[in-house]
Amino acid sequence: MSEFKLTSVEEMEAATARLLETAEKVGADTWQLRVKRQTPHCKFGETGVCCRLCSMGPCRVTPKAPRGICGCDVHGIVGRNFLNFTAGGSATHSDHGREICHTLHKAAPDGNYKIKDPEKLIRIAKEWGIETEGRDIYDLAKEVSETGLLEYGKPFGTQRFLKRAPKHTQEIWAREEIEPRAIDREVSTALHMTHMGCSSKSEALIRQSLRCGLSDGWGGSMMGTEFSDVLFGTPKEVDTEANLGVMEVENVNIVVHGHDPSLSEMICEVADSPEMIAKAKAVGAKGITISGVCCTSNEVAMRRGIPMAGNFLQQENVVLTGACEAIVVDVQCIFPALGPLSKCFHTKFITTSPIAQMPDSDFVRFNSSTAGENAKKIVELAIDNFKNRKPELVHIPNIKQKATVGYSFEEIVHKLDGVTNSIVDKTGTTMPLVDCVKSGVLRGAVAMVGCNNPKIRPDAAHIELMKKLIANDIILVVSGCSAQAAAKAGLMDKRAKDLCGAGLKRVCELADIPPVLHMGSCVDISRMMVLASEIAKDSGWNISQIPLVGCAPEWMSEKAVSIGNYVVATGIDTYLGVEPYATGSEEVDQLLKGGLRDWVEAAYTVESDIDKLGDLMIEAIENKRTALGI
Amino acid sequence: MSEFKLTSVEEMEAATARLLETAEKVGADTWQLRVKRQTPHCKFGETGVCCRLCSMGPCRVTPKAPRGICGCDVHGIVGRNFLNFTAGGSATHSDHGREICHTLHKAAPDGNYKIKDPEKLIRIAKEWGIETEGRDIYDLAKEVSETGLLEYGKPFGTQRFLKRAPKHTQEIWAREEIEPRAIDREVSTALHMTHMGCSSKSEALIRQSLRCGLSDGWGGSMMGTEFSDVLFGTPKEVDTEANLGVMEVENVNIVVHGHDPSLSEMICEVADSPEMIAKAKAVGAKGITISGVCCTSNEVAMRRGIPMAGNFLQQENVVLTGACEAIVVDVQCIFPALGPLSKCFHTKFITTSPIAQMPDSDFVRFNSSTAGENAKKIVELAIDNFKNRKPELVHIPNIKQKATVGYSFEEIVHKLDGVTNSIVDKTGTTMPLVDCVKSGVLRGAVAMVGCNNPKIRPDAAHIELMKKLIANDIILVVSGCSAQAAAKAGLMDKRAKDLCGAGLKRVCELADIPPVLHMGSCVDISRMMVLASEIAKDSGWNISQIPLVGCAPEWMSEKAVSIGNYVVATGIDTYLGVEPYATGSEEVDQLLKGGLRDWVEAAYTVESDIDKLGDLMIEAIENKRTALGI
Repeated sequence: MSEFKLTSVEEMEAATARLLETAEKVGADTWQLRVKRQTPHCKFGETGVCCRLCSMGPCRVTPKAPRGICGCDVHGIVGRNFLNFTAGGSATHSDHGREICHTLHKAAPDGNYKIKDPEKLIRIAKEWGIETEGRDIYDLAKEVSETGLLEYGKPFGTQRFLKRAPKHTQEIWAREEIEPRAIDREVSTALHMTHMGCSSKSEALIRQSLRCGLSDGWGGSMMGTEFSDVLFGTPKEVDTEANLGVMEVENVNIVVHGHDPSLSEMICEVADSPEMIAKAKAVGAKGITISGVCCTSNEVAMRRGIPMAGNFLQQENVVLTGACEAIVVDVQCIFPALGPLSKCFHTKFITTSPIAQMPDSDFVRFNSSTAGENAKKIVELAIDNFKNRKPELVHIPNIKQKATVGYSFEEIVHKLDGVTNSIVDKTGTTMPLVDCVKSGVLRGAVAMVGCNNPKIRPDAAHIELMKKLIANDIILVVSGCSAQAAAKAGLMDKRAKDLCGAGLKRVCELADIPPVLHMGSCVDISRMMVLASEIAKDSGWNISQIPLVGCAPEWMSEKAVSIGNYVVATGIDTYLGVEPYATGSEEVDQLLKGGLRDWVEAAYTVESDIDKLGDLMIEAIENKRTALGI
Repeated sequence: MSEFKLTSVEEMEAATARLLETAEKVGADTWQLRVKRQTPHCKFGETGVCCRLCSMGPCRVTPKAPRGICGCDVHGIVGRNFLNFTAGGSATHSDHGREICHTLHKAAPDGNYKIKDPEKLIRIAKEWGIETEGRDIYDLAKEVSETGLLEYGKPFGTQRFLKRAPKHTQEIWAREEIEPRAIDREVSTALHMTHMGCSSKSEALIRQSLRCGLSDGWGGSMMGTEFSDVLFGTPKEVDTEANLGVMEVENVNIVVHGHDPSLSEMICEVADSPEMIAKAKAVGAKGITISGVCCTSNEVAMRRGIPMAGNFLQQENVVLTGACEAIVVDVQCIFPALGPLSKCFHTKFITTSPIAQMPDSDFVRFNSSTAGENAKKIVELAIDNFKNRKPELVHIPNIKQKATVGYSFEEIVHKLDGVTNSIVDKTGTTMPLVDCVKSGVLRGAVAMVGCNNPKIRPDAAHIELMKKLIANDIILVVSGCSAQAAAKAGLMDKRAKDLCGAGLKRVCELADIPPVLHMGSCVDISRMMVLASEIAKDSGWNISQIPLVGCAPEWMSEKAVSIGNYVVATGIDTYLGVEPYATGSEEVDQLLKGGLRDWVEAAYTVESDIDKLGDLMIEAIENKRTALGI
């Protein structure tokens, strides 16, 4: 085995620099250029003090104009903007979950979609009080998916999955009146509250932000995760690779990008068929390589070991290789820039969702009923496009790392079972992990998630923080673009244990895991909520007492704020590297960074000095340990 | 009877000027001052080219920076902002409708809320295929309200009320894929589409804007109207008065403000009780006067003849009279400014809804289960506050007009029945109106709606346009703050017939109606949709062929854009006096002002020269006549 060495951020940047030379050659626009043109940003917007919620304005709060025309003060304006931002994220995640519910509803033994994890389906059905005895699994899938779909719009009651949380957490939610009702209702209520002449009290606005976030994390996202597992299989440990070097110059390269696995799963199936491989060979390629970007990549990496070409700020890079026959996208976090960029190369930019239509793309409307045909058409488009490559533009950076991924909650428990003495102890719990934390072998855990953001040196925050944390015997559970940063660096290679403190290294060896566990896509942060809940139940601690914090050092999207809100509202302190657009109001800022603690036992910390952010997390974890007396 | 004379805009402005003197004396802030401080507005925001949908930005499109960091172009940015704006309005209206559904659900023979129009309930139940035979009316109300509540979140199917539209209209909606599904789903889908990296194609964004609007007008708003009628009675012709002079100096003055009638109806009930009147007398008042502002005012004016103190930009004036013991608000269009303003006077600013909490207010949490108690507490607070008046600040402008209101669709048909020869013709139709239009006695109709906006001389656009239109034999159906402008001017006095052209004057005399018909609050624009549909069915014309246009000359809210979208999508050309934040994209601008015609047979016209706006509407009506050959 060759010597193991992390890929440094500098090496990744050098690879990008080489690709940017190609961009310059073909006159392509890139985000690096656009950042320059869009900087400096508007301070009114950046601090959240600009209001465009009615057409009397826009209004901007300044020392001379402390209120909008309606009389709303800065706290109301900032609070409304924050709630609106949250609602956007919650709606987005949850709508993704809804699509998965609809796909489950269409599952059939002879259809495009089948049930790959019937056990999980039965478990959920039982949890929801749905009769399972002697039922056809597809019949059950129909009823469970219909019940799930009603979670979006039921007129009465709160989210079913809230019951998964520890009693203490449920009591907090009830006391604070933030138990989410129907998911879409929380979105609509949020927009009603932020309408001109409704809520201007920051406390009320932030409270709804938490509720709206919870409807995502314990509602839409959780259903998205669970039903994706039912349809496509609950992830298990699997080996894969990461970074642009996973693309293969001799193959037809199809890059899947976005978030919803329904299409990408089908593309993987189709591309793997002898028929398609033969077609690829017929056009002179050696075969077909599917790789991914963003969370669609995470989905197929977790379940199939499909390699990860990159994360959010690398999406243009896959086109810049000149070797991408098609970049196929579903929804969310897709640069509209891919349209004009793809025109500078032979690359086909294929949009597929009515929810995410973009100029300068080929639109192949994807529908779960015609998924197979759609996928076939797309793969064929890519194969046919192989001949159009411009050889002089082809350059795939020779840079990749091995990664072991697939750590669903179930798989983590499975790995823990491996180190449980099954004669003395119960299996199927998180107790081995709790014991490691109690004994101090592990100091604690950080759930690191979220995007890239040009405001932070891309991937550097993720990677440097992870290196620092594992060296301090803090294990990482990660998802989204954070997971891909880790994988690209090599932190998901099991050999990365050597970069850990002695305690975590021992844990990695015993459990046979890397120190950074890939839990999935951004909807899969729901897996982390389940994990935290189970740790709390197994340990007897409240969630807020667990030496565990959340972190999104490079976040950028509305979804990230929705996530932050449900993570905090679940009792987990959350550390950000980028300020939300909320610093313009002391009241809102102080609420988010402190006041929330009185409601939900957790709050936000924002620190753009990434090294300091790491210190703060370590300190928080140690403080939690001290408070527990461990 | 005294001589009839309209109140001029100048007279209203003089009254306001006198009140502003009081404001200056007590050091109160007013919207007139805040407009000065907030002008000029940010051009990026005003043209819609600023994007704050992720934290990489904010980004602003300029000639040097034609794309955001993600690569979104100006059409995508403007389109997303427009869709977000629409979603805010649709969610707001519809959430109001939902509250009414919940109130209906709680109706009970011995409860706070009873069924006042059982016939309408039965009619809707039949329309929806719900069994009505031999059923207890409250039992039926439960089932109908539950069915209504599911319209917000049902997993499958489209809105039930769409079937009320003419077949041709329904076919257009199906063809254009803008039939709204569950109401809240359209809101969430909108927010998903506008999320970073989803839709950037303006056509897709505007299409969803129409769909989201339709879910309001033919969904949430229509249920809000219908179930309000079921609970509180379908409006019938009733006399009332309008303008600040309706407040009475010797009485305890309670002003209701907002949109949801559930609270204000209860306050009217309670304030009318001998117990409360006795209490008022005990503190030295002669009695209790309830008057209203905005749509809450329209609701109680339409059903009870409660006088209208004023519309949107007059809300501070009621406090500035110094004679307002309490301004009691529910939701929407309430100036947060009322908080600090009320502190300059003895006035109690009472907020009641968790959806609309504001600083510097007394919060009496309203709940339909405890509505009676809540209302009693509020009325008592107002009575107790009478003694705190500062006599030196009291000045109620001696300015008011008589108005006849209450023209629900049913009442309009009832009035038309009065001029139908029931031996020859069928009653219960809109045919007498159609015949008047065909013969040219009436040239056509304008549905005038919407708010005030300081960008337009307040009320002047509404009033001057109405005067011009009625002089040209064009009848007006109005709602919202437009209706209140009309009433304050005197245009809802039946004697205003003398200001009409000969044709309309004759119609007013025969049908015994004013030339400007008050159809209700802003959710009641759904009544206009029903009216237009019935005219189309009775006449055989398509809705887009009827010599009818919509107009919102002084609009300001997100709701107004949602309304505009459903009115246009129903086939009615719509005329605005204020630009939406969309002129920054030629593509979006041209779509709204023209391209939509290819989809839904109607589009927007925006013209800030109000006189010209009137000419354009008259021209459009005459063109429609010509096209029909009438």
